[in-house]
Amino acid sequence: MSYRLYYWPSIPGRGEFVRLALEDAGAEYMDIGRLSGGSNTVAEMLNRGEHFAPPVLEDDYESVSQVAQILYWIAIPLQLAPDGKHELRRMHQLQLTLADFVNEIHDTHHPLGPSVYYEDQTEVAKQRTSAFIAKRLPKFLRYFEHSVECNPAGDYWLVGERCTTLDLSMFQVLSGLDYALPNAMARQTIPQLRDLAKRVTQRRRLGAYLASDRRLAFNQNGIFRHYPELDVEA
Amino acid sequence: MSYRLYYWPSIPGRGEFVRLALEDAGAEYMDIGRLSGGSNTVAEMLNRGEHFAPPVLEDDYESVSQVAQILYWIAIPLQLAPDGKHELRRMHQLQLTLADFVNEIHDTHHPLGPSVYYEDQTEVAKQRTSAFIAKRLPKFLRYFEHSVECNPAGDYWLVGERCTTLDLSMFQVLSGLDYALPNAMARQTIPQLRDLAKRVTQRRRLGAYLASDRRLAFNQNGIFRHYPELDVEA
Repeated sequence: MSYRLYYWPSIPGRGEFVRLALEDAGAEYMDIGRLSGGSNTVAEMLNRGEHFAPPVLEDDYESVSQVAQILYWIAIPLQLAPDGKHELRRMHQLQLTLADFVNEIHDTHHPLGPSVYYEDQTEVAKQRTSAFIAKRLPKFLRYFEHSVECNPAGDYWLVGERCTTLDLSMFQVLSGLDYALPNAMARQTIPQLRDLAKRVTQRRRLGAYLASDRRLAFNQNGIFRHYPELDVEA
Repeated sequence: MSYRLYYWPSIPGRGEFVRLALEDAGAEYMDIGRLSGGSNTVAEMLNRGEHFAPPVLEDDYESVSQVAQILYWIAIPLQLAPDGKHELRRMHQLQLTLADFVNEIHDTHHPLGPSVYYEDQTEVAKQRTSAFIAKRLPKFLRYFEHSVECNPAGDYWLVGERCTTLDLSMFQVLSGLDYALPNAMARQTIPQLRDLAKRVTQRRRLGAYLASDRRLAFNQNGIFRHYPELDVEA
């Protein structure tokens, strides 16, 4: 099966959660947004009104949006799913909680919403980020740390006994947070999550992808942005 | 099958999306948070660390959180699902987009995040709500209006040819927005969504529920809050 991914070309953003799964599995896919004229193709696809926002992933039969649902859809064919329907639902629940976390991370630099530039909301962003670092960041991280600790199949992955699309996404969120808020992240005690992220980078195909030029660097236009004025002191 | 719903007792909040499905289907359920000492029971359940936030719905075999996933889980047994796996995925995708919409609606009065009181962020909330009303509100509503118009099974419901959990949730979002931002909502042209919401209220069991004292009124502690200073002029 060959896939077509529609996402903006210049940011890792939410598209990267899908890319990590496709790359880890060695799946065949076209990254439409990064072809010549790709931004226009993505915009035209959105203008048809079937999907509210990218990423959108298509195979020959279906067109699917919303990161958590895309991953839920491809996890089994890509062999990145846990065994058992309860475990699959648990994976999806944690992925949806990760999506909520990602929304809150985005809002740290955009508390006035996505339609106002960061430069026009810097002071408010400082207040929002300060509350985020004090309360929400440790609460979310403790929850995921606890989920690894309490995984009945062992404390290697978030759900079940092998790596799933959820673990790849967890790695991406930790990487993004380390980029965006390095000082705040240095204060978090999350040994299980750190080990999990390291295991992800050691996977053969994923490691090769991370070292390749297909992997987009974090920058100042995505979810995870590094504004030193928003972070705490080192 | 009998269900147990865990949610805070004094707000409709996100729990109401689950209640509407259970009530419309005439399902047997215990609303744990509204029993004597219910808030404590909900808090104790959360302290076990399996779920990040309520609502949580349990049957005798499983405990599930995240509104969209709960509805995806119960839609088929409650006969509130469309036929076909593509349509089921489309339902879930639109429900996830509705969840994003709900998050943005909540953020209009809490742009500094959930850990700061409204009274301490009123001025920022005015800016956020103004941007929301100008751009995001019409964009989301147009998307859902278009989804009803383009439903290949007819323009009665969002997906498929009968009412699903998604349509019940759409009704709840429109009701909440009418309560929170009546003037901004009066300016929206959404005839298909208005007809859909009316059809929902005319359903036998759901209509009886809406007229009963089990239905919690919107108030100033939930997702949908009416602060006149945030709305536009009439």
